[in-house]
Amino acid sequence: MRSVSIIGAGCTRFGERWEDSLRDLVVETGIMALEDSNVSGEEIDGLYVGNMSGGRFVEQEHIGALISDCAGLSRLHVPSTRVEAACASGGLALRQAVLAVASGYSDVVIAAGVEKMTDVTGGVAADALAAAADREWECFFGATFPALYAMIARLHMHRYGTTREELAQVAVKNHHNGSMNPISQYQMEITVEKVLRSPLVADPLRVLDCSPITDGAAAVVLVPTKIAHKYSDAPIKILATAQASDTLALHDRRNITTLDATVHAAKKAFGQAGLERKDIDLAEVHDAFTIGEIAAIEDLGFVEKGEGGKAAEEGLTWIGGKLPINTSGGLKACGHPVGATGIKQAYEMVLQLRGEAGKRQVEGAKVGLTHNVGGCGGTALVHILSR
Amino acid sequence: MRSVSIIGAGCTRFGERWEDSLRDLVVETGIMALEDSNVSGEEIDGLYVGNMSGGRFVEQEHIGALISDCAGLSRLHVPSTRVEAACASGGLALRQAVLAVASGYSDVVIAAGVEKMTDVTGGVAADALAAAADREWECFFGATFPALYAMIARLHMHRYGTTREELAQVAVKNHHNGSMNPISQYQMEITVEKVLRSPLVADPLRVLDCSPITDGAAAVVLVPTKIAHKYSDAPIKILATAQASDTLALHDRRNITTLDATVHAAKKAFGQAGLERKDIDLAEVHDAFTIGEIAAIEDLGFVEKGEGGKAAEEGLTWIGGKLPINTSGGLKACGHPVGATGIKQAYEMVLQLRGEAGKRQVEGAKVGLTHNVGGCGGTALVHILSR
Repeated sequence: MRSVSIIGAGCTRFGERWEDSLRDLVVETGIMALEDSNVSGEEIDGLYVGNMSGGRFVEQEHIGALISDCAGLSRLHVPSTRVEAACASGGLALRQAVLAVASGYSDVVIAAGVEKMTDVTGGVAADALAAAADREWECFFGATFPALYAMIARLHMHRYGTTREELAQVAVKNHHNGSMNPISQYQMEITVEKVLRSPLVADPLRVLDCSPITDGAAAVVLVPTKIAHKYSDAPIKILATAQASDTLALHDRRNITTLDATVHAAKKAFGQAGLERKDIDLAEVHDAFTIGEIAAIEDLGFVEKGEGGKAAEEGLTWIGGKLPINTSGGLKACGHPVGATGIKQAYEMVLQLRGEAGKRQVEGAKVGLTHNVGGCGGTALVHILSR
Repeated sequence: MRSVSIIGAGCTRFGERWEDSLRDLVVETGIMALEDSNVSGEEIDGLYVGNMSGGRFVEQEHIGALISDCAGLSRLHVPSTRVEAACASGGLALRQAVLAVASGYSDVVIAAGVEKMTDVTGGVAADALAAAADREWECFFGATFPALYAMIARLHMHRYGTTREELAQVAVKNHHNGSMNPISQYQMEITVEKVLRSPLVADPLRVLDCSPITDGAAAVVLVPTKIAHKYSDAPIKILATAQASDTLALHDRRNITTLDATVHAAKKAFGQAGLERKDIDLAEVHDAFTIGEIAAIEDLGFVEKGEGGKAAEEGLTWIGGKLPINTSGGLKACGHPVGATGIKQAYEMVLQLRGEAGKRQVEGAKVGLTHNVGGCGGTALVHILSR
């Protein structure tokens, strides 16, 4: 199997992009990724795109053909594949692109992600997102997506003593990081006080514990490692790509405070890379809700189970700490255009490992991990990248 | 890159399966495929599923996790990936599964397809299907999906003298084949007269020119060719997997009577397989509408451009003819559960190449081709299989 590297990356500004369509976002990020990677359109022989719910958000399926088309690549008849695993659709696109290059079927592949979420009125977006959970056995009985994560949070607090303030610290840290990221949806810092006073969504989660509705797109360009230096002075090697599944519904899990899909994907990824947890310099993890980041750093093996709550409060996961988490601002502050998130994580990692992350640069970053979750952990993707 | 073979296959009965949910269909076909391939659940290390529009048809996304879950594989945390390319979602799942095995990342992979289409009322299904076309530049202006294919048919008739009766002959042949297929949605034969008197949908296409709304699921099991004989006495080798894209909207094409995505995918597939058109013993092609089969056999290179209309009328494409097409009954008679169709084509080919197709068996079939189209040709997949 061939080793695969990223030679370029692009990401649009995340936010409420009222004047831009899904097509506009794809074109914008595609141009950025191509310019950054020094490849011409003619060289591209594969496209993968993560998109959760074009069918509901913009009434458009067949997103692979659409992005090939609006990128001008349909004239070259480039194979273009949409993949979907709810909020993990972007990470999934990255993995499928790696497999396409590793297999030898493709040489220069774009892995992209896009979601245009603001073209619908309120209830439609919430309902579209609920389709990530189990429609028949969760949503039908009234559970919303935040309600499911709220149950995880409540049990985590009960079982491990995680506090309301510790949840808030995750949001505070990620807004701080987002305030230094020019593509971030939210550019303002917040305080624990502000989080605790924000409106309740699903007890104990408040508005400022939740990632927002976001428009955005991101793309990275992959080639076999052995030709990566032809295009880039600083290619980023993909040391591991791992994916795991779990039950769709929370109530079928052995333990809802642990996302077993994350545990298994992490185990596989560290095995592939031949690395230990201490070798990771920074990580982008799936903080769709603040409890998500706390569970993630536990399930990825960076801290003991039950210790995740303390991490932000004690400084471990801040930039300058031992293991900076979500330097981009995470889903919470940078925004969460569902299908794009997994690719944005890779984009942030490319900047960090190149030393191009500006004010939020992690000093001496050599190896980074990205972690993308679908639904409440029905799918998890873990990638390990190094400069 | 590793050679890949199919060791087993399963397919549900296609039709209006009012009493079965998407889950039920997946479980039914999964059990059939596993029993047929002599693998145990524990050996499976990858799942791919083609599904066009779970979000619209059953309000459920995250279909990869769902099928892993209801197949009992989430306990093993098997990676499970949904892919989508409208009506080509099944063929796309097959190709991604081939890549996963070829890459070395997976050894025993299920490629499945499923669509549950009858849980919605009339307009919703038509609108969900229209999402395969260009929502902004075709559907918004009133084009339905049959209307787009009707334009292809009208120009084909004008340019090449293809007749209304020749279109009807495709339906007559495919219903004849379907009448011999136990899984087929329609078990009755029809006549040219009946097609010509059926209600007009979009001139010149009538109801009996169109594939139906169908519930169904199909699955095949893939392994590296070198271990295929461990599981099966008659493994089916995948000689080629090719995918191509084209513009999403018809009006952007150089010529709407030719699906360039089919032309390019076929060229790549024959190149990979090192075969010529005359080496193909039978094919399953994408007859979502009767004109689709006519264009397909031209664009695949089996007959000259413009000569496709005569093929069914002159007997070429009937069982017993020189190149039997759609022995399963095709999308027209066997049914078209969108995401499952591409896998059902592979299932039919497995039966034919094993000599297990009963009354519709093509004598001495050794090499077969499957052709699956998304939308009006925005995506095309071609696979070549041999015993």
